[in-house]
Amino acid sequence: MVQIATANSITKQRFLDIRTRTEDICNSLKPEDTSIQPVEFVSPPKWHLAHTTWFFEQFILSKHKENYKVFHNEYAYYFNSYYNNVGDRVMRAQRGSMTRPTLNEVLNYRAHVNSHMAEYLEHDVSEHACETIEIGLQHEQQHQELLVYDVKYIFGHQPSFPKLDFEIKLDSEKQAQEFIKIDENIYEIGHKEDSFCWDNELGRHKVYLHDFEISNRLVTNLEYIEFVEAGGYKDFNLWHADGWEFIQTNEIKAPLYWHKVNGKWMQYTLQGFKEIDMELPINHITFYEAFAYSQWKGLRLPTEFEWEVASKYFKYGQLWEWTNSAYLPYPNYKKVDGALGEYNGKFMVNAMVMRGASAATPKNHSRPTYRNFFHPEMRWQFSGIRLAK
Amino acid sequence: MVQIATANSITKQRFLDIRTRTEDICNSLKPEDTSIQPVEFVSPPKWHLAHTTWFFEQFILSKHKENYKVFHNEYAYYFNSYYNNVGDRVMRAQRGSMTRPTLNEVLNYRAHVNSHMAEYLEHDVSEHACETIEIGLQHEQQHQELLVYDVKYIFGHQPSFPKLDFEIKLDSEKQAQEFIKIDENIYEIGHKEDSFCWDNELGRHKVYLHDFEISNRLVTNLEYIEFVEAGGYKDFNLWHADGWEFIQTNEIKAPLYWHKVNGKWMQYTLQGFKEIDMELPINHITFYEAFAYSQWKGLRLPTEFEWEVASKYFKYGQLWEWTNSAYLPYPNYKKVDGALGEYNGKFMVNAMVMRGASAATPKNHSRPTYRNFFHPEMRWQFSGIRLAK
Amino acid sequence: MVQIATANSITKQRFLDIRTRTEDICNSLKPEDTSIQPVEFVSPPKWHLAHTTWFFEQFILSKHKENYKVFHNEYAYYFNSYYNNVGDRVMRAQRGSMTRPTLNEVLNYRAHVNSHMAEYLEHDVSEHACETIEIGLQHEQQHQELLVYDVKYIFGHQPSFPKLDFEIKLDSEKQAQEFIKIDENIYEIGHKEDSFCWDNELGRHKVYLHDFEISNRLVTNLEYIEFVEAGGYKDFNLWHADGWEFIQTNEIKAPLYWHKVNGKWMQYTLQGFKEIDMELPINHITFYEAFAYSQWKGLRLPTEFEWEVASKYFKYGQLWEWTNSAYLPYPNYKKVDGALGEYNGKFMVNAMVMRGASAATPKNHSRPTYRNFFHPEMRWQFSGIRLAK
Amino acid sequence: MVQIATANSITKQRFLDIRTRTEDICNSLKPEDTSIQPVEFVSPPKWHLAHTTWFFEQFILSKHKENYKVFHNEYAYYFNSYYNNVGDRVMRAQRGSMTRPTLNEVLNYRAHVNSHMAEYLEHDVSEHACETIEIGLQHEQQHQELLVYDVKYIFGHQPSFPKLDFEIKLDSEKQAQEFIKIDENIYEIGHKEDSFCWDNELGRHKVYLHDFEISNRLVTNLEYIEFVEAGGYKDFNLWHADGWEFIQTNEIKAPLYWHKVNGKWMQYTLQGFKEIDMELPINHITFYEAFAYSQWKGLRLPTEFEWEVASKYFKYGQLWEWTNSAYLPYPNYKKVDGALGEYNGKFMVNAMVMRGASAATPKNHSRPTYRNFFHPEMRWQFSGIRLAK
Repeated sequence: MVQIATANSITKQRFLDIRTRTEDICNSLKPEDTSIQPVEFVSPPKWHLAHTTWFFEQFILSKHKENYKVFHNEYAYYFNSYYNNVGDRVMRAQRGSMTRPTLNEVLNYRAHVNSHMAEYLEHDVSEHACETIEIGLQHEQQHQELLVYDVKYIFGHQPSFPKLDFEIKLDSEKQAQEFIKIDENIYEIGHKEDSFCWDNELGRHKVYLHDFEISNRLVTNLEYIEFVEAGGYKDFNLWHADGWEFIQTNEIKAPLYWHKVNGKWMQYTLQGFKEIDMELPINHITFYEAFAYSQWKGLRLPTEFEWEVASKYFKYGQLWEWTNSAYLPYPNYKKVDGALGEYNGKFMVNAMVMRGASAATPKNHSRPTYRNFFHPEMRWQFSGIRLAK
Repeated sequence: MVQIATANSITKQRFLDIRTRTEDICNSLKPEDTSIQPVEFVSPPKWHLAHTTWFFEQFILSKHKENYKVFHNEYAYYFNSYYNNVGDRVMRAQRGSMTRPTLNEVLNYRAHVNSHMAEYLEHDVSEHACETIEIGLQHEQQHQELLVYDVKYIFGHQPSFPKLDFEIKLDSEKQAQEFIKIDENIYEIGHKEDSFCWDNELGRHKVYLHDFEISNRLVTNLEYIEFVEAGGYKDFNLWHADGWEFIQTNEIKAPLYWHKVNGKWMQYTLQGFKEIDMELPINHITFYEAFAYSQWKGLRLPTEFEWEVASKYFKYGQLWEWTNSAYLPYPNYKKVDGALGEYNGKFMVNAMVMRGASAATPKNHSRPTYRNFFHPEMRWQFSGIRLAK
Repeated sequence: MVQIATANSITKQRFLDIRTRTEDICNSLKPEDTSIQPVEFVSPPKWHLAHTTWFFEQFILSKHKENYKVFHNEYAYYFNSYYNNVGDRVMRAQRGSMTRPTLNEVLNYRAHVNSHMAEYLEHDVSEHACETIEIGLQHEQQHQELLVYDVKYIFGHQPSFPKLDFEIKLDSEKQAQEFIKIDENIYEIGHKEDSFCWDNELGRHKVYLHDFEISNRLVTNLEYIEFVEAGGYKDFNLWHADGWEFIQTNEIKAPLYWHKVNGKWMQYTLQGFKEIDMELPINHITFYEAFAYSQWKGLRLPTEFEWEVASKYFKYGQLWEWTNSAYLPYPNYKKVDGALGEYNGKFMVNAMVMRGASAATPKNHSRPTYRNFFHPEMRWQFSGIRLAK
Repeated sequence: MVQIATANSITKQRFLDIRTRTEDICNSLKPEDTSIQPVEFVSPPKWHLAHTTWFFEQFILSKHKENYKVFHNEYAYYFNSYYNNVGDRVMRAQRGSMTRPTLNEVLNYRAHVNSHMAEYLEHDVSEHACETIEIGLQHEQQHQELLVYDVKYIFGHQPSFPKLDFEIKLDSEKQAQEFIKIDENIYEIGHKEDSFCWDNELGRHKVYLHDFEISNRLVTNLEYIEFVEAGGYKDFNLWHADGWEFIQTNEIKAPLYWHKVNGKWMQYTLQGFKEIDMELPINHITFYEAFAYSQWKGLRLPTEFEWEVASKYFKYGQLWEWTNSAYLPYPNYKKVDGALGEYNGKFMVNAMVMRGASAATPKNHSRPTYRNFFHPEMRWQFSGIRLAK
């Protein structure tokens, strides 16, 4: 599952830094904010705090630390997620029903596990344990990003529009648009360096690409509003059949968190409800909308292979970028045995690949070969558009 | 809407006593417990705390107290319920999305309104205001009972089965069963005394009753388990067509909060998860189950008129008792104009009348003419069976 | 279940007349028309033709006629309805999936059973068999009325709006409106004569009625359009909470079969799509609409008891009339044992009583004590409004 | 959209042959069979007969034949499908509500259009019209295959299990299994010949394939039953997350049309209900099942590119074969303008590619580059498994 994690990359300091950052995100949350699940795909923040902790207790402390006693017998049952292989678990849709343990109890759980892990990391750690800890840290970083999405959803769907005391800043995309030309050739795709990667980035393999061009920047709010105002959401010719049905059924007429107030487009952000900044990249759109926009421009979305090959020629990292590639295994993809093997392979159907990273992605948790993925109708994630032709 | 409320029934002390009791119910709740809505018909406890407070702010302080400034401009919008006539409101299904205001802020809101009300009640209060305050207090007592139901639902639907620090005690029904005989005659039904009642208890009118008999006690858990074990939930002949469909669709095989663990019937109560006490009255059943049970016994449920006439001959007050009467207006029923007129009349379809009171009913909030009502499929309320023939 | 059916009321001629009328209703239907179920509560006409025939085969020929061989072994399974006691049956929602047997085969089935019944009726028939045959004929007449409703629904929900070659004529209600006054008293309610009735009309019992007044005629289309145009469907104060939710969810803004075309109200009738005749009584409304209309007029709907007592003073029979009575058992109501006992009692919850008869009701299938009933949201039946106060 | 259609490929004889075959499929259907829509994705056979006819009337006769009068003004509205660009249309879910026009009227419509087309084809036809007619014929052949699927679904979902008078024969797959080895290389993918193809088979382009092996035959019923009996449907490790949820929600435990009767696996086929033939290829499975089966065998499904490259080395044509490729555009894919442009591109999301052909595919309507596609949960189409590694 992980390509490589050497013991020297797993240090007590790095462990605690990453763990602390999760708590920092939740700093300004009230207990009430951390315990609800307004919709099935959003998990209560408290659950993220506990679930990432459970990982280290279940896979490291219980297995490798002598005389370790679990913090609470039932927590493995409460805070397991899709790991069907590790006993019963609370169904995803019911995470929001658990008001107990409380936020305080969960923070105590974190402290308990952190202190045991710190102790454990003061001694020599086996290569196998290192690998698992590395996965645990990468996993926690993924949940840090999901935490931001979920808190934004929770705050953005209540009438008081609370703010987060935690800056997630997007930059304007004001550079002039240019299309970078890439030549037809055989390219190598997938992770190759001596560093961590997920199983879905392996094995590195050859792909034949025809000539293509790709934009040097993301589509802006200004550009996207033109599409909205031109009736883009009313012209079925621009949409996939499934996308058209989706926006009809859900009466979607603009990106998530957008509201038209007295004829002006407003937007909920983690810094509050405000006017849309036209220079920022368009955010919180489904794959369907990204595709429809590209059709309307007479252009298209890049494939994930085109994106990976071209990525060294442009700046990225503001928003995850929809590609027109379905999330499928690379040749010679191998699913890892056991619980950790459930991680990626089981999602390789019905999802589209997103490439890059976002302002909500933890530092150092990003690389050109990273394959993120979402069902095409998802839009609570930080998601933007880069055009190709 | 209210028959009578004299100024001397509205005192500062009574006001504060009732208000305080609401907070007492929530004493052992954590902020997380007060902010979720696990199912549409359950409201977050925090919402009850705020909504009952909003009533006094909206209908008394804002209208009658000089220079009163509302605690927060948006609270009227957040905490209004079915009062369609009083501006916009947060839809019932979305009450659980509001993590803000927090429990603390809501408790501050209560303190603020209580202190203004206390001040207001130190002076002469008009008859009209007295009537409205009386309604507000009766309304708050109804919410006290709903609070118990909702907390039980929230605690009874999570894996840790938390307990409440607040005793709701049922007594055993061990007296020998006897059937009280009532003669055919014209009877008067409805409220007549010089005290508060709801509009639905008026006008007092004549009803012709034929001879009937009614049990002196409620059906017990022991008796109900016989029905369960005899296959009562599998014999469609015992059920209404709608009831049969309901238990099939929802796979209902026992009352709410019952679980068969290792061949033994267990039950969640507010004092925890424990074995069923066979002498207690059966609780948490739908009208459909009450009816099916009566069919199985070759008996029937009383009508609400039979119940009211016979009520002086038996003890009641442990559980609300399903009657076989639909909730309909009495002759000469008059809906009150304006917002308060929405209170009862709009529910007079598709509901069955429950009579009596329950262990969760506040003291002095009960009388023989009281008409409670629920859709026949509801069972989270304290609900039992008294048989008739 | 039936009060009385003497042998001399069951004659071969009467049997064949009623049976033939069912086929006459279907005369102008094409095979395709008879085999679909556009919505769960509408049965394919072919199913009505077969189900009513199955009744006589199952309960008379198979039990009482010597050497009778069933027409087809599987038909009892295909064409049973809610008789849970008579073996397996095709679920209601799947009636429309059976394209076989074809209409022709079903007509052959009818001919076969008719000829055997005719033969059987040439000899002496036991009193018990007479009773069952009477029920079968009354049952078939009820299905004749349902057939009209279902054909109208099938034709009224397709773009070509086919016509039926079968006249169902409503008369204008142009007499001046008067309110008939009835005095407070004890009245006897329920069937008493020496003729057929359903179990739900028994036992005859006393009811105390207070003074009331009831209209001499039904509400007209002209009057109802005033309500529609005055915004009646937009004022929640006029509606039950359940009714308001129902019209919101289903976006109901007018009676069934009404369409506003170029600013003019049009209507599908069995004689085609045409302008609304303002003098005819309003038809195809839910209980919720009948109630809301009465609220808007400052009046109310009568109870079923008021209706029965007053019925000798007005003309009825154009449309079933919504009452404000829930469908509940009379005192001393007895459910019949066995399959036929399922007929009425199991529906005594969640339904409202309709009284009278309609233009689609077979001749002689109506009496002042007849209790029809529907869920309050149903409107494909012929349903109108008579006001009371 | 079509690569090439020369005038000499469009002859009156070929036109009439293809048109006649559609009617032949429906030969033994009764009118009732042709007019129902048991589930949204199944169209009434009558609709197929009319819709394919509408194509020629709309795009050829109305546009190109002098003085042509449409058979019926409303048919364009009734029988249009997903062509959003050609006016209003009856929603897909409501096709089954149209009992009129009847089967006979639709057959008259076919005769009318056929005779006008025959007349039209006796004269010189423009290249543009030839192209459109070719599309119409290819389109009709696709509907011939859908007709078989839909009739099987209609017959296979009613208790009498009718048979079709039309042979669709599968052969046994008894050859020993061998894996064909294909070497790593650059391959050309897509249609290149001088003959008809769909837009989705263009443009021909280069793909880099790594070494792979592919089976010489399909998986048999015998092999698949081993998977079923070994608990394959109960082991979530074998399934995609979406697939696992799908089989749980829909309680799927075996392929479509399979029934376990008295411990023996039986199957509905168009020749009736019978025991499963163990040597035939497994049919009527979702992509999820094909994938889970391959996981259980420790193997995988081929990509569509692997399949196309290897296809000359094995026999295919019994069943469409699931590939592990999502249905996406080829490089340089161009959507055609106008109504015909809706045909393929709008489905390029959420679907998986199937390659090959089936016993229900019309002769000459198949080629190695043909890209069929279905949502992964579909299984009423003729669908099988070829393994790769």
